[in-house]
Amino acid sequence: MSLFLKRSSRKVGLAPGTLVYVGEKKVEPPKITVIDYDETTVNEREVVDIEECVSSKDLPHITWINMDGIHQVELIEKLGKCFSLHPLLLEDIAHTGQRPKMDDFEDNLFIVLNMIYSDEQDDGIRSEQVSLVVGSNFVLSFQEQEGDVFNPVRERIRHGKGRIRKKGPDYLAYSLIDAVVDHYFTILEELGEDIESLQEESVTRPNPETLQTIQWLKKEMIFLRKSVWPLREVMSSLARGESGLIKEDTHLYLRDVYDHTIQVVDTIETYRDMLSVLLDVYLSSVNNRMNEVMKVLTIIATIFIPLSFLAGVYGMNFKYMPELDYRYAYPLFWLVVIGAFIIMIVLFKKRKWL
Amino acid sequence: MSLFLKRSSRKVGLAPGTLVYVGEKKVEPPKITVIDYDETTVNEREVVDIEECVSSKDLPHITWINMDGIHQVELIEKLGKCFSLHPLLLEDIAHTGQRPKMDDFEDNLFIVLNMIYSDEQDDGIRSEQVSLVVGSNFVLSFQEQEGDVFNPVRERIRHGKGRIRKKGPDYLAYSLIDAVVDHYFTILEELGEDIESLQEESVTRPNPETLQTIQWLKKEMIFLRKSVWPLREVMSSLARGESGLIKEDTHLYLRDVYDHTIQVVDTIETYRDMLSVLLDVYLSSVNNRMNEVMKVLTIIATIFIPLSFLAGVYGMNFKYMPELDYRYAYPLFWLVVIGAFIIMIVLFKKRKWL
Amino acid sequence: MSLFLKRSSRKVGLAPGTLVYVGEKKVEPPKITVIDYDETTVNEREVVDIEECVSSKDLPHITWINMDGIHQVELIEKLGKCFSLHPLLLEDIAHTGQRPKMDDFEDNLFIVLNMIYSDEQDDGIRSEQVSLVVGSNFVLSFQEQEGDVFNPVRERIRHGKGRIRKKGPDYLAYSLIDAVVDHYFTILEELGEDIESLQEESVTRPNPETLQTIQWLKKEMIFLRKSVWPLREVMSSLARGESGLIKEDTHLYLRDVYDHTIQVVDTIETYRDMLSVLLDVYLSSVNNRMNEVMKVLTIIATIFIPLSFLAGVYGMNFKYMPELDYRYAYPLFWLVVIGAFIIMIVLFKKRKWL
Amino acid sequence: MSLFLKRSSRKVGLAPGTLVYVGEKKVEPPKITVIDYDETTVNEREVVDIEECVSSKDLPHITWINMDGIHQVELIEKLGKCFSLHPLLLEDIAHTGQRPKMDDFEDNLFIVLNMIYSDEQDDGIRSEQVSLVVGSNFVLSFQEQEGDVFNPVRERIRHGKGRIRKKGPDYLAYSLIDAVVDHYFTILEELGEDIESLQEESVTRPNPETLQTIQWLKKEMIFLRKSVWPLREVMSSLARGESGLIKEDTHLYLRDVYDHTIQVVDTIETYRDMLSVLLDVYLSSVNNRMNEVMKVLTIIATIFIPLSFLAGVYGMNFKYMPELDYRYAYPLFWLVVIGAFIIMIVLFKKRKWL
Amino acid sequence: MSLFLKRSSRKVGLAPGTLVYVGEKKVEPPKITVIDYDETTVNEREVVDIEECVSSKDLPHITWINMDGIHQVELIEKLGKCFSLHPLLLEDIAHTGQRPKMDDFEDNLFIVLNMIYSDEQDDGIRSEQVSLVVGSNFVLSFQEQEGDVFNPVRERIRHGKGRIRKKGPDYLAYSLIDAVVDHYFTILEELGEDIESLQEESVTRPNPETLQTIQWLKKEMIFLRKSVWPLREVMSSLARGESGLIKEDTHLYLRDVYDHTIQVVDTIETYRDMLSVLLDVYLSSVNNRMNEVMKVLTIIATIFIPLSFLAGVYGMNFKYMPELDYRYAYPLFWLVVIGAFIIMIVLFKKRKWL
Repeated sequence: MSLFLKRSSRKVGLAPGTLVYVGEKKVEPPKITVIDYDETTVNEREVVDIEECVSSKDLPHITWINMDGIHQVELIEKLGKCFSLHPLLLEDIAHTGQRPKMDDFEDNLFIVLNMIYSDEQDDGIRSEQVSLVVGSNFVLSFQEQEGDVFNPVRERIRHGKGRIRKKGPDYLAYSLIDAVVDHYFTILEELGEDIESLQEESVTRPNPETLQTIQWLKKEMIFLRKSVWPLREVMSSLARGESGLIKEDTHLYLRDVYDHTIQVVDTIETYRDMLSVLLDVYLSSVNNRMNEVMKVLTIIATIFIPLSFLAGVYGMNFKYMPELDYRYAYPLFWLVVIGAFIIMIVLFKKRKWL
Repeated sequence: MSLFLKRSSRKVGLAPGTLVYVGEKKVEPPKITVIDYDETTVNEREVVDIEECVSSKDLPHITWINMDGIHQVELIEKLGKCFSLHPLLLEDIAHTGQRPKMDDFEDNLFIVLNMIYSDEQDDGIRSEQVSLVVGSNFVLSFQEQEGDVFNPVRERIRHGKGRIRKKGPDYLAYSLIDAVVDHYFTILEELGEDIESLQEESVTRPNPETLQTIQWLKKEMIFLRKSVWPLREVMSSLARGESGLIKEDTHLYLRDVYDHTIQVVDTIETYRDMLSVLLDVYLSSVNNRMNEVMKVLTIIATIFIPLSFLAGVYGMNFKYMPELDYRYAYPLFWLVVIGAFIIMIVLFKKRKWL
Repeated sequence: MSLFLKRSSRKVGLAPGTLVYVGEKKVEPPKITVIDYDETTVNEREVVDIEECVSSKDLPHITWINMDGIHQVELIEKLGKCFSLHPLLLEDIAHTGQRPKMDDFEDNLFIVLNMIYSDEQDDGIRSEQVSLVVGSNFVLSFQEQEGDVFNPVRERIRHGKGRIRKKGPDYLAYSLIDAVVDHYFTILEELGEDIESLQEESVTRPNPETLQTIQWLKKEMIFLRKSVWPLREVMSSLARGESGLIKEDTHLYLRDVYDHTIQVVDTIETYRDMLSVLLDVYLSSVNNRMNEVMKVLTIIATIFIPLSFLAGVYGMNFKYMPELDYRYAYPLFWLVVIGAFIIMIVLFKKRKWL
Repeated sequence: MSLFLKRSSRKVGLAPGTLVYVGEKKVEPPKITVIDYDETTVNEREVVDIEECVSSKDLPHITWINMDGIHQVELIEKLGKCFSLHPLLLEDIAHTGQRPKMDDFEDNLFIVLNMIYSDEQDDGIRSEQVSLVVGSNFVLSFQEQEGDVFNPVRERIRHGKGRIRKKGPDYLAYSLIDAVVDHYFTILEELGEDIESLQEESVTRPNPETLQTIQWLKKEMIFLRKSVWPLREVMSSLARGESGLIKEDTHLYLRDVYDHTIQVVDTIETYRDMLSVLLDVYLSSVNNRMNEVMKVLTIIATIFIPLSFLAGVYGMNFKYMPELDYRYAYPLFWLVVIGAFIIMIVLFKKRKWL
Repeated sequence: MSLFLKRSSRKVGLAPGTLVYVGEKKVEPPKITVIDYDETTVNEREVVDIEECVSSKDLPHITWINMDGIHQVELIEKLGKCFSLHPLLLEDIAHTGQRPKMDDFEDNLFIVLNMIYSDEQDDGIRSEQVSLVVGSNFVLSFQEQEGDVFNPVRERIRHGKGRIRKKGPDYLAYSLIDAVVDHYFTILEELGEDIESLQEESVTRPNPETLQTIQWLKKEMIFLRKSVWPLREVMSSLARGESGLIKEDTHLYLRDVYDHTIQVVDTIETYRDMLSVLLDVYLSSVNNRMNEVMKVLTIIATIFIPLSFLAGVYGMNFKYMPELDYRYAYPLFWLVVIGAFIIMIVLFKKRKWL
């Protein structure tokens, strides 16, 4: 459940702007990579000291600082001071579990996204907060853990593929957001395959595990939905270009990401609908089997209980029971039994119970 | 399930504007037809080389290029260069599985639709992306497969029927959209007939297949809905005439298509509601039969279990059981049995179980 | 089902503006009545030739042409030419099954309504398209069949009752719309009575017919809702006076019709809610009876199965069974049986099963 | 059901503005009270003739005319003529069963409300239309029956309590609306207590009456909701001050009533949600008991059916059954029976059936 | 239920602006604390007399008066007179059970919030109305009971932590609202843990208590939702800065609280969805167990009822039953019994009943 509410009570009562890290404790220092680039040059390095990484911030090239791990809040604070970021912005970076949102702090744009990945261990879906700060000539990105989702962007910068080196920090921010949103499709594909395999299972061989999988998927959908819905709004206002930091010709690209977000939302809704249908299919399969069980019971009982009664009758010890002495009473008894049996079967067939 | 999410993970990590085809692999080359027409002349030909097909693009007549099959992305790229289309637009043509949408790229209007057709083999509903690019004197249309949905439009151009030859590319685009939307009605009619036949079946002779058909139809509805909902928005903004490429007097026609789209949406919603009612009808029919089964069991058991007990009693071997020696004990026993039987039947009738 | 989708596939592929009649084939010619009136004079006649009926169209009085039956599209075409109506408008008149809508064609206002009536034969609700064209000095009305819903309006014109003769064609159109909407209340009252009688039935004597009636009413509600929802929008834009053909002082009257439409929508929603509650009531009544059946079975089985076992024990043929020879074994057996019986009854009473 | 649709078909076909009373017939004349007041004087009288009551309408003081009973439409017509009210307004006063609404007829403001009261006889909730007409120096109020809901307002005028005597007719109208809305709370409190007592009942001692009460309350909620939802809109537009007849400083008071209306709507929605939960609680309580019944049956049958079989075996009359002659066969039989019994009990305990 | 509707009928009929306290009666006087502060000085005292507390209200520093306990309406009235507050505002302070709302009374801003806390005694969630009045240099806060939720704010003022001493009364109001909203997270965390523990329980060991907890949580969610939904709107309009009393640079902070409110709303919705899934899980677990019970019954009955019949047959006393005299009849009987037994078991295994 902690997935659904990361904001811990540890924070209650503190002054706004106080940086508190609420994730798991870690000891290794965050990994900080700095890439300075312009149309002709690229300079990539890994740093340990914040001072070092911001040395070049007033030069004309674009600076992208990526921090993997946000558990050392003093580093974030330093970075914030250096780039003169608002304390509330810094608080939100450290205090993960935010909903996706976009805040426009005049000098810079603050964007919070949720990165979705599937946990290797228990096959569940986890989310991680990715924070972006876009300034006039820099982009800061913060991830909770080291991940490889930004690698393709890094590659494109290194090798000057596409337009990325010719464009500004807004295009870089777009590329990072696009990378995060594209990742959703990978997850959705996995879930789609799970649903497809359930579809067959729930008709042909429903079992309690089918139900558990359906309900597990339903919970994942609730979780995904919660992550993606607010993203839609964020992308919409980015694409509408409400901030001055986003250049005109980047809007088209952001609109493209917005379209993808809508597609993700649509797919989640469709999956939810599919899961509801699947649940119905499963429940009526189970119900069908139950009905079969009941029919068997009823057929057996309806045939044999009256016949048992008949056998009981001729097992009575009354002195004067003329049938007992008839020569052909016993074969007759069997005739009656077999006759009754046949009549019953015919009746059941007629009522379509067999 | 792949129906619901065509966007494949193959694309993740590529630079925006990279053309990737995500459909099934095919070997035969796409079929490209070019129609140049104005009020007096028509020139229709099938080409294999893109250069050839665009030769006439700066002449005053209207050029309609239709490409059936989009698996050779280099052809699309060439066409894009020739008509100077935006890379994101080309990406969306190649990368099928888009939601219906309309993008206004100043010089041209990009429209994505879903064509719905029923698969011959498994009776399921499939969708295909149809992309339209409308320029000042040309229309480009892209289909995933060769289809006959645009034939009536072609016929009208060839024979100069209706207004089509007198109007501009916006009217041609309208005609193509109209053809696609009209096709929805054919599909809805087929589904409507299926639902109608289910309606009777679910009351008079419900069986597990009924349920499966209901749930299959429900899934088709989810699929259709996903395709049509965004179309509504697209048609609405086209009809409101937000783009300069759509002339004033075409708005009325587009409004007409918009009305049809609304009708499609309404019908889908109505079918969904009908299917819910049908599911309820089916489930309560099944339940009714179950109740009948239980009643039979209870009636049989309630009549014969006590009588069997009585027979059992007189089958006991106690030495001193005075009844056993009574002369008329056995006939009396039968009297009691028949009496009890009659009383039970009366009671059941009273409680309306029979 | 054809109720829900009248738009037939016959139309697919035709040029827009082509008139196609999609209703049932009929042979008798449509009945055309013309009323010319102003404050002082009324002139009412039935005509067969369109030329004749439009002879007076340029005179200062108001002309109301009503056509019952639209299966002869050439008549509609002639009328359209005479009053210079837009081809799309004519197409919509002939092609019934439209959603209620209002289109403003500058020179005239086109309004499509659904007339609801209950079919005499199968007690079902049917709808018929009523189209109105309002011009500066004329009103054209088209009905699929001859009906009496416009008679009160005709009466008011004939006898100069109310304001109708002093007002313009917009007031006439209002009167016709009002007549159609008022008719909904008649249908709703009938349905209301059906629901009321169901209400008692579903508690006191639920039977499968109850369920069928509930579900039949549910389907009728889906149908009604589909007809009335879009009407709300139509009336709202008419009442807001978006068209120049509607005079200022008619808005108040149209607002009144709008209020009635809202009331119809409200009532339909309320009926739907009521039917859901009724379905619940029915299902839990049925369930209650089922529970009773099961209790009876359980009580009988729980009492007699152990006693039968006991009787079975003393029916065994072991040589050494001391009880068999006891003098009072048999009366004792009956005492035990009666005792067990009483204890069981007490237990059942305690558990509230009896 | 008639509660939900008072608008009768009797009205169909009449000219708009025709006054028709659709409630129950009554013979006694309506009670008309007139209060003329300004800051210093109050003059209250009961009249029978309309002429008399309007004599003072052009004097500077404020006139409040209240009519209890609207079954004599000619009185309403006279009043309407005297205050020059629009015919549609008068029609709506007489024709009860309107939805709450506000119409701005320039010279006066027409407000329709629903008064809710609980019927003494059958404990059901009834609604009554209260119509208000607010002019520049008068307020007319119409009730279907004599009621005491306006008494506190009358008292405040008589004794000059609060601001009422210093303010205009808009404040008087506000006071009347406030009185009506406040009355909702009384009804909601009663219903709240009913729900509270159900809550316990449905867990501890569910019985068919519980279900009936739940469903009765559900129906009342549907009814209440239908009355209150449109009121929200009415209050909102009154509070926004869209009419010139409402003075600036009354807006604050109307906003207060608006807040109360929202609170009523909220409470109704909450009650509906509570009732859904209660229905679920009830149904699962019933289901639980059913399961218990089934368990008892199964336990009894599972224990005694096999044992009965065993007893049956030793009741067989085969000549050669060696066990029958064993000395300790009978005690052994009982040992087996008791052993099986104990094993069964243990098994049931393990499976948590006992 | 009284939780859901505190507004009592005691108020009905009173003039607007009459102060009525509707909570529980209390005898101890309310606790009133006054804090005067500016950037350099802090003066905190507890007072009993209102006159005393407002003595410094015209000095340049900011005055924060907090009243714990609002049962002495005359104190509120005095305070209101001193700060010239509107009577409707005072009425709303005293009359608890208001929905969260914001009213702008030009000279001051009136904000009503709901404080949520969990009741120690019965573990239920209670709400308390917190009212804030923000003026140009003062903030008044009213709580129903003494609580510690404002203590961190008091601490920050005392020790000059954060920006609070440098900012105006709007920032103080923000801090108080933030404290209240942050408190929601504590409650949500508790509920989250409850849901998490239910999740396991409902799969592995469902019992009636599980159901009761689920439904209890559902009711709490309905209650929470009712408190928080209107808060969203309040925070939104505060953050948009519609009032002149909120300074420009406080908007950013209020936006932050708005984000938190949205997060609370989201979490409640997610919990509701989770509880629905849990209920489904529980019900299908119970259903599964029921099915198992039924299967056991059917298996036992299906095996033993026919065999009992067979035993009954050979217990009959017919004179001529040749099998009875066969030497190996009895062992043969047992062979048949065991054979039937094995066949049955195999059949059940095949049908997956075992």
